[in-house]
Amino acid sequence: MTEISAQQITREALMARDQKDELRHARERFDLADDLIYLDGNSLGALPRAAAASIAEVTAQQWGRDLIRSWNKHHWINLPQKLGAKIAPLIGANAIEVIVADSTSINLFKLLAAVLQLPRVRDDANRRVIISERGNFPTDLYIAQGLNALLGNRFTLKLVDADEIKNSLDHTVAAALITHVDYRTGHAHRMAELNAAAKIAGTNIIWDLSHSAGAMPVNLNLDSAELAVGCGYKYLNGGPGAPAYLYVAKNLQAQLATPLAGWLGHVAPFDFTAEYIPAAGMDRFLCGTHSAIAMAAMECGLDTFENISIRDIREKSLALSDLFWQLMDEHCAQLGFSCVSPREHASRASHLSFAHPQGYAIMQALIARNVIGDFRQPNLLRFGFTPLYTRYVDIWDAVATIRDVMLSEHWKSAEYQTKNAVT
Amino acid sequence: MTEISAQQITREALMARDQKDELRHARERFDLADDLIYLDGNSLGALPRAAAASIAEVTAQQWGRDLIRSWNKHHWINLPQKLGAKIAPLIGANAIEVIVADSTSINLFKLLAAVLQLPRVRDDANRRVIISERGNFPTDLYIAQGLNALLGNRFTLKLVDADEIKNSLDHTVAAALITHVDYRTGHAHRMAELNAAAKIAGTNIIWDLSHSAGAMPVNLNLDSAELAVGCGYKYLNGGPGAPAYLYVAKNLQAQLATPLAGWLGHVAPFDFTAEYIPAAGMDRFLCGTHSAIAMAAMECGLDTFENISIRDIREKSLALSDLFWQLMDEHCAQLGFSCVSPREHASRASHLSFAHPQGYAIMQALIARNVIGDFRQPNLLRFGFTPLYTRYVDIWDAVATIRDVMLSEHWKSAEYQTKNAVT
Repeated sequence: MTEISAQQITREALMARDQKDELRHARERFDLADDLIYLDGNSLGALPRAAAASIAEVTAQQWGRDLIRSWNKHHWINLPQKLGAKIAPLIGANAIEVIVADSTSINLFKLLAAVLQLPRVRDDANRRVIISERGNFPTDLYIAQGLNALLGNRFTLKLVDADEIKNSLDHTVAAALITHVDYRTGHAHRMAELNAAAKIAGTNIIWDLSHSAGAMPVNLNLDSAELAVGCGYKYLNGGPGAPAYLYVAKNLQAQLATPLAGWLGHVAPFDFTAEYIPAAGMDRFLCGTHSAIAMAAMECGLDTFENISIRDIREKSLALSDLFWQLMDEHCAQLGFSCVSPREHASRASHLSFAHPQGYAIMQALIARNVIGDFRQPNLLRFGFTPLYTRYVDIWDAVATIRDVMLSEHWKSAEYQTKNAVT
Repeated sequence: MTEISAQQITREALMARDQKDELRHARERFDLADDLIYLDGNSLGALPRAAAASIAEVTAQQWGRDLIRSWNKHHWINLPQKLGAKIAPLIGANAIEVIVADSTSINLFKLLAAVLQLPRVRDDANRRVIISERGNFPTDLYIAQGLNALLGNRFTLKLVDADEIKNSLDHTVAAALITHVDYRTGHAHRMAELNAAAKIAGTNIIWDLSHSAGAMPVNLNLDSAELAVGCGYKYLNGGPGAPAYLYVAKNLQAQLATPLAGWLGHVAPFDFTAEYIPAAGMDRFLCGTHSAIAMAAMECGLDTFENISIRDIREKSLALSDLFWQLMDEHCAQLGFSCVSPREHASRASHLSFAHPQGYAIMQALIARNVIGDFRQPNLLRFGFTPLYTRYVDIWDAVATIRDVMLSEHWKSAEYQTKNAVT
């Protein structure tokens, strides 16, 4: 690795900072190669150390030996509620307000359809606008389009810029799908402010917490959020394609019903009656049978947060991203990078994105050198900071590698750029 | 175990039959305790021997070491298509007609919604009936109810008896949801006949193959089936809550679109564009991100069928269920059991159900003695026969245990019956 002559910060100082870091032992909860600098936990969280044994136990003993009996004996049937209760404190909710099921996309469909079916929405001919953010994660927009098409395009999906959302929430709005944190820029919305505006407008916001939960404080109850969904495989460390979750504020649960009326959402699934009667509480948002193995993996992910305060996570997250930004300014200033993430802490989540004309090829070169971030269209290099397992020294090494890649003769050759731009 | 004095069949003869069984080596593909008689593979298939190592590899190496890179490096992204192609020969379909995703319930919703959105259905005010079978598995009925409620109850869900389905398929029918094999009785519909009737009526049947695929020949193409879904965790041995699958006949794929328009069903998911454009072929029926671990388990389940013909499976399945029925007639004739499954092979799938007034308590007693079947309301003891791992001698031992349970002093005491009836 190329030595960087530090101006204010040294690698040694960062190693010392890691030694003093109160979260340093949390890294031991993960099974991470030591030569890897993993800055993509915002896309797929690292492997919890407990997961291999837990998954092996569920496979060999529970599936292999106890077989069908495990639905009761090992409480497979209650995993959606059990895991929901473990997510609840991370998002400022009560245990009975969160349940784990299906994918983020499907859970968005459940909640949006439920809101659009509320009599006060369905029967109000003036409420025909669904608000979302221009540049929202596509699946959120696609789900709204798919549902709206099914409803005969009765609604208009209106995409607005981040700073226009608040003013767009008026009496014409049937529902709003807002992602708490932008997947590209890492910009975080002010949840309380938008929820207050929605309340005045008599409408509901469905929050997508995929890029915030587990990385920064989310205070659904405190901020008067009514509806939310989120992803299990990013900051929650639940494993590749882990199940997702839903949150519905307690006082709203009985009013909402999902059209994905599968048997596990029934009030008495094992009575096998012909008429669908939704269960009380969050159980009604269950649909089909869940993977006990995927849920076991996810539980290990949630357990990596045990006895760690989200405030400590947030503090380190900001320190890591501040450090990354500062080192990029110091060491990669003339190399064509431009940060598109918010400078102020109040608007920043736990990842930073840098625009660069050769973004794709640069990220490929970084990955080849064991610095893992990801690339997002059209030109963004995205780096996620996961305080449970990212060290301060990793930030130093990542920036040093970026500089190294940019200054290498190999990189500058036209041949390399052409070859890598198309792979 | 109580000795049974055999009249025509002996335990020794069945052990000899197992020795000559061409499928006897298939049991080695599973990790099953030798003292367990598992007759519930129709509810949760047994653990494939390869699964533990495969899941461990996906966990420790692919997730733990290769992390986000595994979506490409280990082809996680293509698991839905890869597994679909492995299911296709089991159900008489082309590889490009089957894809693995989500749960059976959710896949039913996708296909039913897609059919109801076809212009020739949507715009025909006379096609407002959804046909299903009285006593169909509840989730199929619930999904139809949930979707119909979302559509303002524009349709009428009409439940008919099995023998009335054919005549119910007329020009008023928007779609029919038919489960190939009844989950209680094991009665199998004649697929070709009903598909022909649907064609004449200008309507579509969505087949649920959950209780047939993997246990008996299903010939979707040959029998002119257009749409089907099925479960991964029963006869396909895909693990607890394994993903499910969808089948759409090639010529119909381009016409259908799911309202569950998640990003992985987009023509170019990684372009992150705002407008949903469905992918070509079966990919459009994908929605959110799938669990790579659950899919790895499922692949091991599908691989247990490798180089085994579904005809051999069917032959042994019928032999096993014939044997069970015969032994029940011989040894448990006066004990209050009454078989509700079809006697004739053409209508029988791979499980048998026996009604008994004390059905629930009897099944609990059997499970306590390591004979695992299951109980279905109101009074059915259900026994599934899975030719890949069920031995002829298991059938003898199962019936011997049933007789033993029924004749035991312990069982006959009023105290026992009362105690067990409520657990």
